[in-house]
Amino acid sequence: MRTELPQAIIVLTGDELLDGRTRDTNGAFLAARLAADGVQVARLTVVPDDMGLLVAALREALAFEPAVVIISGGLGTTHDDLTAAAIAAATGRRLEEHPEALAMVARRTRDLAERRHALFAEMFAVTRREALLPKGARPVPPAGVAPGIALRHEGTLVYALPGVPSELRAMWPWVRGELAAAGVLGDAVTRVVRIFGVGELQVGTVVDGVPRTLIDVAINVGGGEVAVRIRHACSGAAQAEADALVEALVAAVPVYSTDGRTVDEIVAEGLRARGATVAVAESCTGGLVGGRFTDLRGSSDYFLGGVIAYANEAKVALLGVDGDVLARHGAVSAEVAAAMAEGARAATGATFALSTTGVAGPDGGTPEKPVGLVYLGCAGPDGCRTVRERFPGDRASVREWAVTRALHLLRETLEAGEGPGETLAGADDGGAPSAEGGDA
Amino acid sequence: MRTELPQAIIVLTGDELLDGRTRDTNGAFLAARLAADGVQVARLTVVPDDMGLLVAALREALAFEPAVVIISGGLGTTHDDLTAAAIAAATGRRLEEHPEALAMVARRTRDLAERRHALFAEMFAVTRREALLPKGARPVPPAGVAPGIALRHEGTLVYALPGVPSELRAMWPWVRGELAAAGVLGDAVTRVVRIFGVGELQVGTVVDGVPRTLIDVAINVGGGEVAVRIRHACSGAAQAEADALVEALVAAVPVYSTDGRTVDEIVAEGLRARGATVAVAESCTGGLVGGRFTDLRGSSDYFLGGVIAYANEAKVALLGVDGDVLARHGAVSAEVAAAMAEGARAATGATFALSTTGVAGPDGGTPEKPVGLVYLGCAGPDGCRTVRERFPGDRASVREWAVTRALHLLRETLEAGEGPGETLAGADDGGAPSAEGGDA
Repeated sequence: MRTELPQAIIVLTGDELLDGRTRDTNGAFLAARLAADGVQVARLTVVPDDMGLLVAALREALAFEPAVVIISGGLGTTHDDLTAAAIAAATGRRLEEHPEALAMVARRTRDLAERRHALFAEMFAVTRREALLPKGARPVPPAGVAPGIALRHEGTLVYALPGVPSELRAMWPWVRGELAAAGVLGDAVTRVVRIFGVGELQVGTVVDGVPRTLIDVAINVGGGEVAVRIRHACSGAAQAEADALVEALVAAVPVYSTDGRTVDEIVAEGLRARGATVAVAESCTGGLVGGRFTDLRGSSDYFLGGVIAYANEAKVALLGVDGDVLARHGAVSAEVAAAMAEGARAATGATFALSTTGVAGPDGGTPEKPVGLVYLGCAGPDGCRTVRERFPGDRASVREWAVTRALHLLRETLEAGEGPGETLAGADDGGAPSAEGGDA
Repeated sequence: MRTELPQAIIVLTGDELLDGRTRDTNGAFLAARLAADGVQVARLTVVPDDMGLLVAALREALAFEPAVVIISGGLGTTHDDLTAAAIAAATGRRLEEHPEALAMVARRTRDLAERRHALFAEMFAVTRREALLPKGARPVPPAGVAPGIALRHEGTLVYALPGVPSELRAMWPWVRGELAAAGVLGDAVTRVVRIFGVGELQVGTVVDGVPRTLIDVAINVGGGEVAVRIRHACSGAAQAEADALVEALVAAVPVYSTDGRTVDEIVAEGLRARGATVAVAESCTGGLVGGRFTDLRGSSDYFLGGVIAYANEAKVALLGVDGDVLARHGAVSAEVAAAMAEGARAATGATFALSTTGVAGPDGGTPEKPVGLVYLGCAGPDGCRTVRERFPGDRASVREWAVTRALHLLRETLEAGEGPGETLAGADDGGAPSAEGGDA
């Protein structure tokens, strides 16, 4: 498939991306948008703010003759903002002050100076260099102060956008409009099947067992989930191959989504559909389940809030967990998970409440309650169900898996519909998702 | 500086890194560790799981003749796990089953089969290929099932590690040990100065005004903070240049850390030092402030928990916010922020409590209370202080800035020490951090 789709190369520049301080979001954003539009990202290169290394990366990218090169970063006003000059060097052009770009920079600088109660002339002396573009380039209207750069070099469309994620995102539609007008965007179909409860090993065996010639298949793992991404051209034969693979997956492994919807979206729709609300009672996740619910816009329709009960005293005071139960079973137990969920449900009046309590590590593990052990509870109109899980990896990994498991616990509860809830006697049902995602 | 330090190139392989589904963490981790050890990452390349593109990226990396090449991903058992074969192709070797690697894979597969109650023979038939290494390579002891690959190719040390972050991190110390033994690790000094309250523009002006020849300076922005990273060799002259820059920054902009400590660490130390505790009352951040506190190991020493009060009813029921105050001022107001913080402090008995209430967007903004408007409160023994902020960007950006601002509000409160708290009359003190970080 890789040769049929139009190709793109992404170049990110910024020392901060190469010293571990900043995790890239722009590359992921651009790649996702391009993939959704049927453009294959053949490479993403990250280079420091170093003229020689940046020019070399741009030359290599252009030598590949892709349909599109997109550069992010290095459009600011400081000494390590080199992108315009690097594009000029890599394409054999010189830098010129572009009148339209200059007007954009002046207008944006005036706004900024006003907000900051600063002198326009002083600021403009610094920002003016952002109007320098390689000869023949056009400015991309800025979201901040710096305009982007648009340039056609031989057969390749070259765009440079700021490294600030909010600016890059705001300026992307303009670039996408140009790509669409230039006929670069493809018509590939991407279908995503999501699986929860087994690892990559089992999913890979199914995928490898289905013959395919017209579809491109990738397997991704993360947070305890496995996603199978199937991409193909818009033809009936390719569609049939994709259908066969989806069918095989549904038959063999616990598929929970065949249309790409995430567990977050499914849970949100399920709650909205029944006019239900949800609350949380979080110990080891410390608020991250609530954070995940409220990532979605409009989550106030169904998410009420809840309690972060990190300390045992908070479990007692804010959730009404019985001190005796805590003493007898310990904070990390099915009994406390259930009491936390019931407590959050009672305190907020929510239809459902999710709880987490576990040992995130790296300290605090014991032979009986090792690092990675997490109990989760889901209380609802039909009772409370708890599950016991043992998650792999470090503190961040255990917490990420716990958040994902909490969402799936609610999904399962919503899907079980009006059936009777399991009682605590039936709790600890294991059902642990595989701890061996990835390079098993 | 870039030419003096030993160079490394990182190659990540995985379709999931190029379709926007997975944000890279391995590249950031490796780059941070290498930078801390005085190794300059000259390039990070991400390629899909495609043999041609992966081999090309490895050849380019080797042609650069760096001291080290580190590859992450593609060591699993599925059809798109190509790394061993790609290294073999790029270095002109063939693949061989390595006896020591085979023993490692067998042992790990046996453990996995036991845990899964699966048949060893069936699983081993699939995992056995993970013992195939390029001729002359040695296995890196695995954290999961797949061993890594260690190989010397001409002057370059080549390592391949799994793409699963927890496995990669667990296997890194082995690789680092080899790099140390080979004398690759440098002795560069890195100093990080952290600034909160102004944007990149102001910081860049200071940096550009200080003469320097022996130090390498990079400016990073994110979440409302600016970090200046100064790297130099261990010489007195370079040290003096670095000192002069730090001094200039402290004199001109609101520096809060000159030793690299993050606001999270400073707050944790401040709370520990006075035996104080903290709780949260979160509306627009939905639990992310609690999530951030509990990112740190050992945070149970001072973090008690708190309340996620997303719905107004939760603000009343769980935090005792007066319904009249809510009706009169609206949920997004200094009065409600103060009542939330006081409510969380009272409910948990914490020394301090932080609150957030705002319009994260994209919906819900009005001319008086636009998207990005956030009130934060910090209640403590000396009263409650609130601040009003207007954060830039999209929903995720507003929430991220709000979390960072909350931590700084507590830092400011701790630093103010035993002085009298500001009253609500003195609230809304603005002090908004610059909304123009990055490529302003």
